[in-house]
Amino acid sequence: MPPVPAAVLPRGFAFSAAACGLKKSGLDLGLIVSEVPAAAACLFTTNYAKAAPVLLSQSHLRRSASRMRAIIVNSGNANCATGPAGLAASRKTAEITARETGCMREQIIVCSTGVIGVPFAIEKILKAVPPMLQVRAGSAASFQQLTRAIMTTDRRPKWASASCSIAGKRVRLLGCAKGAGMIHPQMATMLAFIATDATVSAKALRRALRAAAAKTFNAITVDGDTSTNDTLAVLANAASGAPKIHNMGSDYRKFAAALELVCRSLALQIVQDGEGAQRLVEVIVRGAASDRAAGRVARTIATSPLVKTAIAGADPNWGRILAAAGRSGVRFDPARVEVSMGGIRMCSKGSAVPFNERAAHHRLLGKRVPITVDLHSGKGMARVWTCDLTEDYVRINASYRS
Amino acid sequence: MPPVPAAVLPRGFAFSAAACGLKKSGLDLGLIVSEVPAAAACLFTTNYAKAAPVLLSQSHLRRSASRMRAIIVNSGNANCATGPAGLAASRKTAEITARETGCMREQIIVCSTGVIGVPFAIEKILKAVPPMLQVRAGSAASFQQLTRAIMTTDRRPKWASASCSIAGKRVRLLGCAKGAGMIHPQMATMLAFIATDATVSAKALRRALRAAAAKTFNAITVDGDTSTNDTLAVLANAASGAPKIHNMGSDYRKFAAALELVCRSLALQIVQDGEGAQRLVEVIVRGAASDRAAGRVARTIATSPLVKTAIAGADPNWGRILAAAGRSGVRFDPARVEVSMGGIRMCSKGSAVPFNERAAHHRLLGKRVPITVDLHSGKGMARVWTCDLTEDYVRINASYRS
Repeated sequence: MPPVPAAVLPRGFAFSAAACGLKKSGLDLGLIVSEVPAAAACLFTTNYAKAAPVLLSQSHLRRSASRMRAIIVNSGNANCATGPAGLAASRKTAEITARETGCMREQIIVCSTGVIGVPFAIEKILKAVPPMLQVRAGSAASFQQLTRAIMTTDRRPKWASASCSIAGKRVRLLGCAKGAGMIHPQMATMLAFIATDATVSAKALRRALRAAAAKTFNAITVDGDTSTNDTLAVLANAASGAPKIHNMGSDYRKFAAALELVCRSLALQIVQDGEGAQRLVEVIVRGAASDRAAGRVARTIATSPLVKTAIAGADPNWGRILAAAGRSGVRFDPARVEVSMGGIRMCSKGSAVPFNERAAHHRLLGKRVPITVDLHSGKGMARVWTCDLTEDYVRINASYRS
Repeated sequence: MPPVPAAVLPRGFAFSAAACGLKKSGLDLGLIVSEVPAAAACLFTTNYAKAAPVLLSQSHLRRSASRMRAIIVNSGNANCATGPAGLAASRKTAEITARETGCMREQIIVCSTGVIGVPFAIEKILKAVPPMLQVRAGSAASFQQLTRAIMTTDRRPKWASASCSIAGKRVRLLGCAKGAGMIHPQMATMLAFIATDATVSAKALRRALRAAAAKTFNAITVDGDTSTNDTLAVLANAASGAPKIHNMGSDYRKFAAALELVCRSLALQIVQDGEGAQRLVEVIVRGAASDRAAGRVARTIATSPLVKTAIAGADPNWGRILAAAGRSGVRFDPARVEVSMGGIRMCSKGSAVPFNERAAHHRLLGKRVPITVDLHSGKGMARVWTCDLTEDYVRINASYRS
């Protein structure tokens, strides 16, 4: 990742990071503070076993009518399955952050990521937060530290920016994300934070975020596992001075497009950094009875261990793609199916067509591998992204805690 | 596997195996012939992309009113996605087998397993079948060869037997199976054949087979992938001379129990031989609102790559079990959940309880690892079996075709 240039920073935000000791070493605490209350939109995990910070942040958003001041996030401990003590710890995290920021506890979003079921060492947070708030400048360097502070098994920090012009005023969006395993659609399979100086109603922000997530964060999968802590949060603090964006119109569309751009970039960075991943796989399903049916077929292919291991070996084993489509629960006529890998057609009308194995193998060694399936039985279309399943994925996850 | 003793052979069946050249080397063709037409019951894959032999066998069973004479099975080529030529090849396979057996083509069940989408070299089958029918004796040695002829990535041949007494007559059941990858419930994630000399109506046989499969073959998963060729077939030829078993009563129950015994043994042998597997994992979910809900939770846990890699590393990472349960789509109260691994309780009322990490690690190194989840919100219960996900699974599947 190139260094973050100062020009992409939205106005009116301060970023900060610290090493509080929840991880064995390195940065593990991050903070995003808006100078003024910001409109907020959040999407949380759909997992029923939600972590304490998720439950707390959901209640804070309701109680503050989505006018939030800060996001505090730690890595090293998910604070999940930690019982009443875990919830108390998240509450204390919000309290100390609110006190130092000078706002209400309910204006704080709290996020945690890391191991599940380990008691949360709240005293480390309480000690580390006050000095973090001394740093008031929204510097590019402190944002860059934040991108590292939220990492767990990530190999690379992930950030993305966009801007658009609203009534002649420049509006900036800057986001970061973490996530490499436990990644699966169903909102939001990781942590991602986006700060923008746009002036936008909470309602319009929510609408734009939901639409963007559907096409990006909810269209990626690493391993089919949805985490207990997933959170995608956007703060819009109006510091650009641009006029207010409401629920529709050309300003809304411009802003929504910029937000989708940031989300897509972050989502693809997550898949490319998928645990043990060597390549990004783009699964496109066309010709289904509906977009929904196409999505179901695409997700079944994208989560099939046999498809993903074949890609790991750059093996043009398209039969596994057909088999995965066939078990997706979507009815289609196998005699019409067309399958391509790496842009090479391997199956037409449900039967093998001759292709150059060596050329195909070479294509599958690329950094991005498209898989296209046309069911030829409708106009439904869907696209999801995944990565290959390698021995490294197993190695990483067989010993995550040790 | 110990050698097959002659005493377990059901009467009136001949078994045979040959090396016809579909595999690079070794036995790849198997045959089970009943001396007389036998009542048959079959369960086939639910995959929409069914292989040619599956489609043909389904039509044969209908046309012969489930009175079948033989099963012919090849490994080395799945004859799937092979178009009209593939269907013609399956038909010719049935024809040559019928001619040599002296029956109608429609009395033959045809099965294939191997790579998808490779043209089927039917001439190899046509040459190999006639000599196979010279061997008329139902010898234990030829059955044992058959168990090897159906293997693909299997490391071990799999067979099981049972017997019961019906009105003083000994009735024998002898089965074999293959399967190590593309294993997932939804009938029938592999090939399995059971020969019995019981006298049983086709209707009663179907009922007993469906009940047995639900608790055995449909309760195992290796990788969540359902194949295009899965077939479970039973032939009952009445050669024991025992009186006819109808749809209910104590004889039915005795026979059904023996059938379930054979199915369970074969199913567990498949999971234990799961590609790259080191251990058998038994996932038991209790306290769900219904058996169905329990099954959904159990299957989500059993297919979670993160749970399966943790078991590979003997890592008592029970948080992943909780997370998998939470994303299963089944609603429950996380604050009541209890989780045990290897018989050690690690989570109670949704929170971590202290346990000895070293002792737990040691337990998880065993050959059989139980995982128990109690949702404490009902009486529903389910049990599924899976195996751990190892680097070897990836190694095997990244290069299956090469």
